[in-house]
Amino acid sequence: MTQVNEELPHTKHILLEKRIQNFTRTSFQHLEKLSNRSSYVARSCKEIMDRYDEREDGLYYLTTANGMVYQTFCDMTTAGGGWTLVASVHENSVYGKCTLGDRWSIQQGNNANLPDGDGNWSNRNTFGTAEGATSDDFKNPGYYDIYAEDMSVWHVPNNFPLDHWNLAAILRYHTNNRFLRMYGGNLLQLFKQHPVRYNIGSCSNRGPAVPIVYDHGDRESTRMLYGPHSRAEFEPGFITFRPINNERAAMAICSGVKPTGCNTEHYCIGGGGYFPEGNPNQCGDFPAFEAHQNWNPPKEMIEAAVLLFYR
Amino acid sequence: MTQVNEELPHTKHILLEKRIQNFTRTSFQHLEKLSNRSSYVARSCKEIMDRYDEREDGLYYLTTANGMVYQTFCDMTTAGGGWTLVASVHENSVYGKCTLGDRWSIQQGNNANLPDGDGNWSNRNTFGTAEGATSDDFKNPGYYDIYAEDMSVWHVPNNFPLDHWNLAAILRYHTNNRFLRMYGGNLLQLFKQHPVRYNIGSCSNRGPAVPIVYDHGDRESTRMLYGPHSRAEFEPGFITFRPINNERAAMAICSGVKPTGCNTEHYCIGGGGYFPEGNPNQCGDFPAFEAHQNWNPPKEMIEAAVLLFYR
Amino acid sequence: MTQVNEELPHTKHILLEKRIQNFTRTSFQHLEKLSNRSSYVARSCKEIMDRYDEREDGLYYLTTANGMVYQTFCDMTTAGGGWTLVASVHENSVYGKCTLGDRWSIQQGNNANLPDGDGNWSNRNTFGTAEGATSDDFKNPGYYDIYAEDMSVWHVPNNFPLDHWNLAAILRYHTNNRFLRMYGGNLLQLFKQHPVRYNIGSCSNRGPAVPIVYDHGDRESTRMLYGPHSRAEFEPGFITFRPINNERAAMAICSGVKPTGCNTEHYCIGGGGYFPEGNPNQCGDFPAFEAHQNWNPPKEMIEAAVLLFYR
Repeated sequence: MTQVNEELPHTKHILLEKRIQNFTRTSFQHLEKLSNRSSYVARSCKEIMDRYDEREDGLYYLTTANGMVYQTFCDMTTAGGGWTLVASVHENSVYGKCTLGDRWSIQQGNNANLPDGDGNWSNRNTFGTAEGATSDDFKNPGYYDIYAEDMSVWHVPNNFPLDHWNLAAILRYHTNNRFLRMYGGNLLQLFKQHPVRYNIGSCSNRGPAVPIVYDHGDRESTRMLYGPHSRAEFEPGFITFRPINNERAAMAICSGVKPTGCNTEHYCIGGGGYFPEGNPNQCGDFPAFEAHQNWNPPKEMIEAAVLLFYR
Repeated sequence: MTQVNEELPHTKHILLEKRIQNFTRTSFQHLEKLSNRSSYVARSCKEIMDRYDEREDGLYYLTTANGMVYQTFCDMTTAGGGWTLVASVHENSVYGKCTLGDRWSIQQGNNANLPDGDGNWSNRNTFGTAEGATSDDFKNPGYYDIYAEDMSVWHVPNNFPLDHWNLAAILRYHTNNRFLRMYGGNLLQLFKQHPVRYNIGSCSNRGPAVPIVYDHGDRESTRMLYGPHSRAEFEPGFITFRPINNERAAMAICSGVKPTGCNTEHYCIGGGGYFPEGNPNQCGDFPAFEAHQNWNPPKEMIEAAVLLFYR
Repeated sequence: MTQVNEELPHTKHILLEKRIQNFTRTSFQHLEKLSNRSSYVARSCKEIMDRYDEREDGLYYLTTANGMVYQTFCDMTTAGGGWTLVASVHENSVYGKCTLGDRWSIQQGNNANLPDGDGNWSNRNTFGTAEGATSDDFKNPGYYDIYAEDMSVWHVPNNFPLDHWNLAAILRYHTNNRFLRMYGGNLLQLFKQHPVRYNIGSCSNRGPAVPIVYDHGDRESTRMLYGPHSRAEFEPGFITFRPINNERAAMAICSGVKPTGCNTEHYCIGGGGYFPEGNPNQCGDFPAFEAHQNWNPPKEMIEAAVLLFYR
């Protein structure tokens, strides 16, 4: 049992003093610069970059068409920059089967009477903060407000601080064919066209699969981020929307892959309110990522938040 | 299965280009105007209107007596304008009986040991955003901070965007007798005088019933927004506070009606932590709105958020 | 049944008119002063005090190293002032055993498979507001962003408004030996060194116990804030971090006391995800504060939020 009521030893004291002085001095200059960003008026990081010639990664203020102001992270370097973080999908517990924290599927239990689940893929509810995006689910007004052309996705280990996300990510990629123009300019609109809803169709009715460009990782490393049996039923190099599994459960996103089979609950995330197989074992934000040994992704994938960007 | 890796056809391209240009051009001028609103200092929409001569519906910044700043929607047109949106009651699932999402009754299950439920009618907890007020529960600092005289209520179909609320609403009305002055100036104070608490009294001890003026709808259309049996036990043309039912369960608001009977769980919303009858079937933000065929309101009423304004 | 459709009597009218005029006049001058605080750039209340010579208790804007802006309460008077409110631990229901609202332990049920619980003691998730800190759990970015030396703790009865916290508190104290320097400068870092995790060690492996200076209350009044049997196994006059009980459950903070025994679930707060004894009876933000008559703290302690400040 430690009891801290003595003074610190002298040398340790001096080192700490220096560390704190540096910390304070640099931070005030830095803070003033960051606080000047509050004068920017823009709806996306792309507009921040284009209008104010900003090139530094970090937090910026954005404004919705209605005038709601929020802060989020801008990636100003990847592939020309201008990427707005609009959401993160964070699995708080693989033991919770559509319980509290499963905002991207349903938090009220696996339930065929609630085919849309919590509905957050296609409503204007928001939650979380940019700095907390790897510690809990995050969704900001940009998700529904920005009119975007492309998406970028980062898989960042849980609880990493914002300034380390880029380097810590185990997978980073983006699209470059402006596919979102065909689907209304953002995920809210895309998922209105392709609802994340139980029993909306069968496995053959999945939404678009869009080819990706890798920023960290490649097709082979993508394969290895999913379980052994999963690798036999997808093609890496894509991002796929609204997959449907054998039992007609709908998911939202297959990150990095295009399904060629129908057991998408093992490698696609988010979902509606009902997953029939093994009720309620497959229900969750990472639906059946911890359900069957041969299908389970490695731990590093399960314990990484999926950050979604628009440009 | 769609796969989007081809270019868009040329003509469609041009149309989209134009749409995006318009979108960007108009929005920047609009955004700058909206962002100038951040210089306003006021505690309510009424003060914004009176002090800055603003007459446009939309989001404004407000400040509490302690200096907490938040954004909310101002209705600047109805009956002279100056109405501040302070809360919305949104039913996320009629199948959830006082489970997650039932912030206006109790989220921890029907429980006689918790007569006040989650207590949000009479505390300073806040949640949600103005833009998300039809997608989830909403409560902002105005609820407890503003000193108001009258209330306005809008029933808006779930998930409608803010700029369509007024037109989409299935019922809109307001009071004009300054009744809130007698109850401390807001709902926090009113519900301190008339606690939303199980077993605080009997059906005859309900709180005030205040006559309303219709802005959209009338007495007859109000009647039709509730179930057939309910219509026999209320008088339309009022807003009533803290009704109590036969089993001594307390509710918060009967929107549009004054009870003349005691089965208020079928047409009044919000509540304390315990609804004895059919435990837990009558517990919820919309307590027993989906419990008995002859009492159930039509679907359009159940699937509309109840927006509460002060002036 | 009251029905409010008559006018108010004349004299009452005049009194109310005056009250409202005063309310409005004073509040506008006051609001303008408060709104000027938005120009301050600082990471802590200490910096606000030092840089802008502010000495008034109340809400101020702070900015994280990454530029995230938030508002919180500054105590500018206690022992030289400069204290930043970073969190509050609020027990919403002693009947909820690690259910919704138990953010400082686990909201998904007592679970040995989730030894860290919800993990909020050592992640960057945030929730709640300063004005709502006595009505619900609160955690702001200061919790992980500020580099602090000392802590202050206030026990404030639930639902009291911010301007009455100081006077209403049943216990207030602070440390003055700069102990946080040895633990990384804040609780995020301290709890990385001493994880709040089930089965991380035994009762003899608890974290630091730091002596306190009383601002309201004393050693004897501290003793009386806990149950009769608890008084035999702690020494008042300290704040202790990461205690561990007989069954290897970890808690976060023993407020006001240093354990000399191992039944810390009766007088220490917060926790990991598993409390083995009487599963799940001892699990919660105030773990076993309502479990055994002879150990239970008085009601005033259970119904007071624990506010945590840094300096």
